Amino acid sequence: MSVDPARLSFNQITADHLDLDQVIEACAEAGIGRLAPWRHKLVPDAGERIRAAGLRASSLCRGGFFPAPSAAERRERDADNRTAVDQAAAVGTDLLVLVCGPAPDGDLATARAQVLEGIETLAPYAVEHGVRLGIEPLHPMMIGERSVVVTLAQALELAERFDPVEVGVVVDAYHVWWDPELERQLERAAGRILAYHVSDWLVPTPDLLAGRGMMGDGVIDLPRLRGLVEAAGYDGPIEVEVINTANAELPAAELMARVSRSFVESS
Amino acid sequence: MSVDPARLSFNQITADHLDLDQVIEACAEAGIGRLAPWRHKLVPDAGERIRAAGLRASSLCRGGFFPAPSAAERRERDADNRTAVDQAAAVGTDLLVLVCGPAPDGDLATARAQVLEGIETLAPYAVEHGVRLGIEPLHPMMIGERSVVVTLAQALELAERFDPVEVGVVVDAYHVWWDPELERQLERAAGRILAYHVSDWLVPTPDLLAGRGMMGDGVIDLPRLRGLVEAAGYDGPIEVEVINTANAELPAAELMARVSRSFVESS
Repeated sequence: MSVDPARLSFNQITADHLDLDQVIEACAEAGIGRLAPWRHKLVPDAGERIRAAGLRASSLCRGGFFPAPSAAERRERDADNRTAVDQAAAVGTDLLVLVCGPAPDGDLATARAQVLEGIETLAPYAVEHGVRLGIEPLHPMMIGERSVVVTLAQALELAERFDPVEVGVVVDAYHVWWDPELERQLERAAGRILAYHVSDWLVPTPDLLAGRGMMGDGVIDLPRLRGLVEAAGYDGPIEVEVINTANAELPAAELMARVSRSFVESS
Repeated sequence: MSVDPARLSFNQITADHLDLDQVIEACAEAGIGRLAPWRHKLVPDAGERIRAAGLRASSLCRGGFFPAPSAAERRERDADNRTAVDQAAAVGTDLLVLVCGPAPDGDLATARAQVLEGIETLAPYAVEHGVRLGIEPLHPMMIGERSVVVTLAQALELAERFDPVEVGVVVDAYHVWWDPELERQLERAAGRILAYHVSDWLVPTPDLLAGRGMMGDGVIDLPRLRGLVEAAGYDGPIEVEVINTANAELPAAELMARVSRSFVESS
């Protein structure tokens, strides 16, 4: 079944070369009604600017980064995550996306324990401020530099320790499509999916971090994956998050047109 | 516990810039007694040459590549795999390593079914020739170009359909270290581990296919992983498989010295 174009939300990292105002303008001109801003692009009145253009924020990217060698550093991470919760509320979204890692020294077990501890510490503050925490499993190739949570099963094991209105999971097609457990884990995720992201897996993949393709340019069966996500009860915004440095080579209007077209034709 | 240096086997792809005679000579001079040859480097009397230098082959890399769009092409793959079985026997090893993929068109379910079918077709021939089949799960970042079998759990689900003396798994630290299920799946693998490979995960990883590090240069806790593999009953050769184009910049003797030292100090 074809996707409702109104579900498209533009994840800002897709145009990391633009500032917030430029992205807001490009979305508004392209008729894209939702935006997922990134923290490094925020300005103090980001929420007002987004709303003034008639847009809505679907999430804020990103908090997390819980593991650190010392308790003092972990307290700093927690303080930063509280700021992220405040920022999420200020831009008008109830969802903060969490990147859960990396391990400072390759000790995965310790880092994974610190992730749980970090979420436990942060969750009450987030609840108080009306913000839900979305654990996003990242592709296993990002374990060294980004995330020690690398499977949907692992994200769910963490999320299931909390009330689903407080902590859930973010499903990104690029990060999970390879998983032989995908169908089973998406069934298990019913009621806990807080966001769904799309992009495509290019063959060959030119870069570990910034080598994603537009929907339809790679090999992920995105319509099938969306069907599984919808069968698990998720019918909210779908963020297009195509991290690729080549996007900077396109004029903003053309990039937005490509995103909209790929979304409708191939998501 | 420190590793027995006699367990070191040199996987030939670590020195893909050398031909078979050069690798045999470099191993013999470095006092490395085992070698895992690759098929694209074989010569008709490879087995004789390996034995004449006092070496033994620990495995042959590699068969597999079962999925293909048409039945005719799948029969060609099977014929090629029978040749690989013959070659394994001829070089004096009882182990053929299988790379199980990729999916010709991104259809993972079909490709995975063809992998099982391919192993079922090949296994009786391998048994007849005294060669065991080792299913090697590859890192999920290799799903587009190499393997649809990307977790140890998945490899075991396949292997468990066969007698353990016919089909088992190949555990490569680089491919499996990220897996939150690793401990549980290595326990499950007891009696089915046919080979163990080491290298290291560099941070950052410079390349998806040829960016591996020498043991100790990355973040994998290799001694712990070896402990888990040994606890599962595996005490055979340990292949050093460091796929990195930079290895070609070292003189052969220096490369072998680095391999031996990294193996003893950090595996």
